[in-house]
Amino acid sequence: MPDDAPDPTTQRLPDRLDVVGLGSPLVDVLSRATEEQLAAAGLSRGAMALVDLAAAEVLYAAMGPTIEVSGGSAANTMAGIAALGGAAGFFGKVADDELGHVFVHDIRAAGVEFHPVMVPASADGGPGAEAQGTGRCLVLVTGDAERTMATHLGVATTIGPGDVPEDLVARAGVVYLEGYLWDLPPAKEAMRRAIEIAHERDGSVALSLSDPFCVDRHQREFLELLLDDVDVLFGNEEEMVRLFDAESLDQAITSAEETGLLVAMTRGAKGSVVLTPRGPVEVPAAPVDQVMDTTGAGDLYAAGFLYGLTHGAGPEECARLGSLCAAEVISHLGARPEADLRQLVREAGLLS
Amino acid sequence: MPDDAPDPTTQRLPDRLDVVGLGSPLVDVLSRATEEQLAAAGLSRGAMALVDLAAAEVLYAAMGPTIEVSGGSAANTMAGIAALGGAAGFFGKVADDELGHVFVHDIRAAGVEFHPVMVPASADGGPGAEAQGTGRCLVLVTGDAERTMATHLGVATTIGPGDVPEDLVARAGVVYLEGYLWDLPPAKEAMRRAIEIAHERDGSVALSLSDPFCVDRHQREFLELLLDDVDVLFGNEEEMVRLFDAESLDQAITSAEETGLLVAMTRGAKGSVVLTPRGPVEVPAAPVDQVMDTTGAGDLYAAGFLYGLTHGAGPEECARLGSLCAAEVISHLGARPEADLRQLVREAGLLS
Repeated sequence: MPDDAPDPTTQRLPDRLDVVGLGSPLVDVLSRATEEQLAAAGLSRGAMALVDLAAAEVLYAAMGPTIEVSGGSAANTMAGIAALGGAAGFFGKVADDELGHVFVHDIRAAGVEFHPVMVPASADGGPGAEAQGTGRCLVLVTGDAERTMATHLGVATTIGPGDVPEDLVARAGVVYLEGYLWDLPPAKEAMRRAIEIAHERDGSVALSLSDPFCVDRHQREFLELLLDDVDVLFGNEEEMVRLFDAESLDQAITSAEETGLLVAMTRGAKGSVVLTPRGPVEVPAAPVDQVMDTTGAGDLYAAGFLYGLTHGAGPEECARLGSLCAAEVISHLGARPEADLRQLVREAGLLS
Repeated sequence: MPDDAPDPTTQRLPDRLDVVGLGSPLVDVLSRATEEQLAAAGLSRGAMALVDLAAAEVLYAAMGPTIEVSGGSAANTMAGIAALGGAAGFFGKVADDELGHVFVHDIRAAGVEFHPVMVPASADGGPGAEAQGTGRCLVLVTGDAERTMATHLGVATTIGPGDVPEDLVARAGVVYLEGYLWDLPPAKEAMRRAIEIAHERDGSVALSLSDPFCVDRHQREFLELLLDDVDVLFGNEEEMVRLFDAESLDQAITSAEETGLLVAMTRGAKGSVVLTPRGPVEVPAAPVDQVMDTTGAGDLYAAGFLYGLTHGAGPEECARLGSLCAAEVISHLGARPEADLRQLVREAGLLS
C-alpha cells in the first residue's frame, strides 16, 4: 500500500480527546463460510480464537474469496466515535508492511488520531516468525450473519508499557481498553500504565470484556480491575455470566449492579441493559432491514455509548446511541461504519 | 498474507476449460467518495485512468477508509464464470507481496485455475520503483453508485509473450482478452500470442473494449483485431460509438453489425443489445433492489454471457445470463460475485 493520510503530527492536535482506545490493530480478512468449514477448522461459533502463523495460513488457504478491511475491536470503536463527530485517539503496534499501511491509512481516514509504532517488516515472515507482520483477523461469516474469528496478532503482541503514548492518553476524557489485550503480559502492563495516566488526569477508564473465552482466561484479574481501576464496563450476557460466575442472567445482573460501576450489557437482538446506581435501564435494539455480518456489533455499541457519555447523554440515551451504531454496522460486511452516523443520530432524534 | 489455496499444479486439471482470461491482476482499494474528491483528483467520472506510483499514493492518502478486495477486469469475469459452474483459467503477473498473495488466494478460492508468474517483491517499493508491487486499482464510488478508477499496474505491466502459459490457453474454448492490456506493448504481444494459440486450437477469441479512453488510445488497432482475430466483442454504448467513430448509437450498431461478429453492447440500466448475423436482440437489465457499486458490472455481464455461450445458450439467453450476473455484482461493494450465481440462474429459469 502507498503511504497514508496526512500525518497528524504536523497538524494542530486537539487539547482534549473524548476517548482514546488501546487495542490490537488488525486487518480483518472476511469470507462467507459454512458450518462445516467452522467445524473443520475446529473453531467455536461466535468466538475469537488466537492462532499462530502456521494455523492462520492453513485456515486462510481453506477460506473462500475474501475481503480485507481494517478492524480490531478498540480501533473499530474509535472509528465509530470519530464518525459520530467525537475526538478519538488510538494506539497499538503495526508492522511496516502493506497491511500495516492499510490499517494506518484507514484509521486516520476515519478521523482518529493515531501515531503508530511501526515495527520494520521482516524480510520473509516465514514459519517461526511469530511476532512478524501486522496482525490479521480471519473472520468467517456464516449464513446467519454470525462471525467466528481466528486472530493472528503478529507484532501487536509486542506492545509494552514503554509504547504507551503518554501525551495521547493524558488528553483523553475516557481511556477505552480492549479485554483481548489481557492475553499478553507486556500488553497488560501497557494497559496498567494507561490506567495510571488516566487516573492521574481524572480521566475515566472503560473496559470491554471482548469475548467469553477471554473472560474465562482472565476472570480473577478482570474482577480485580473492576474494584479499583474501571469506571465503565461493556460485555454481552455470556461474558457477564462468566465474569461473575453467575448461575443465571439475573444473578449476573445483580452482581454487576453490586460493582457500583456503569455497566452496559449487550443482548444481541434483544438490545441492551444499562446498570446504574439508580437501577437498570432496558433499551431495545435498533431496527435493521437485513443483518449481514455481526462483526463489530459490540465495538460500535461501545462507540455510540461512549460518544453519548462524553457528550452529556444519560444512560438510556447512551444505550440508544449504542444500539443505533450497532445496527448500522451489522447491516453490511465489515466492522467499521459505512453510513453517516451523525445523520442517523439526527434522524433518530437523539442528542438533540 | 499467508499462503494461498491448494496449488492447482498438484490437482488433476480439466482437459478442457470453457474460458481462459488474460488481464491485469489487481487488488481493488474501494472507498466512497464525493464529486468534489473526484474533481480534486482530476479524475474523469466513470472512467479508468492509469496513474504512476506517486500519483496513486497521493490519491490513496486523500481517500476515506477503504476496503481491499481482489479485482481486475478479466479476473472478475473468470471468477464469475467459475461461480456459475464453468471451468475458467486466468493468467497475469503479480508480485510476491501481501496483495499478490491476496490476489492468488482469492482467484483460486473462486475456483479459477491460475498458475501465477510471481515477481519477487522489492525491498522497498519506493519512488521510482514503477514496476514494483502487485497492481492495485483505487476505486472511488460516488453517491450514485458510479465507480471511477485510478489504476497503478505495478508488475502487471511487465507481462510479455514469454509469460503466456501455452498449455492453459491451448485448453480454452474461448480466450478472453481485456482491452486495458493494449496500453502496454509487451502485454499486447502476449495477447497476440494467446490469440495465435487459440486459433491453432480452433478456440474463439473474445475482446472487451474495457473503457472509452482505452478505445480512443487504440481505436485503429482494435478495429484491425476485429477483422481477423476476434469472434466475440464486448463493450458499452460509448465504447462502441468511439470505436466506430459513429455519430449516433444507431450508426454504431450498424457498424458493429457489419463486422459480422457476435457483439454484445451493454447499456447500463437499459440492459443490452446483442448483434448477430440474424439481427439485433434487445434484452432488459435484471432487476436490482438497490444499486450499491457498479464496479464489475461489465465484467460480470461478460461472465454470464460467455458461460452461456460455452453451454449451448443462444444470444438472447447469453445476454439474460449476463444481465443476471451484472445485477448481482452491482448490488454490493466489490467486483466479484457474493451470491450463489448458480442458484440465481436456476431461479430465473435460465439454461434449464
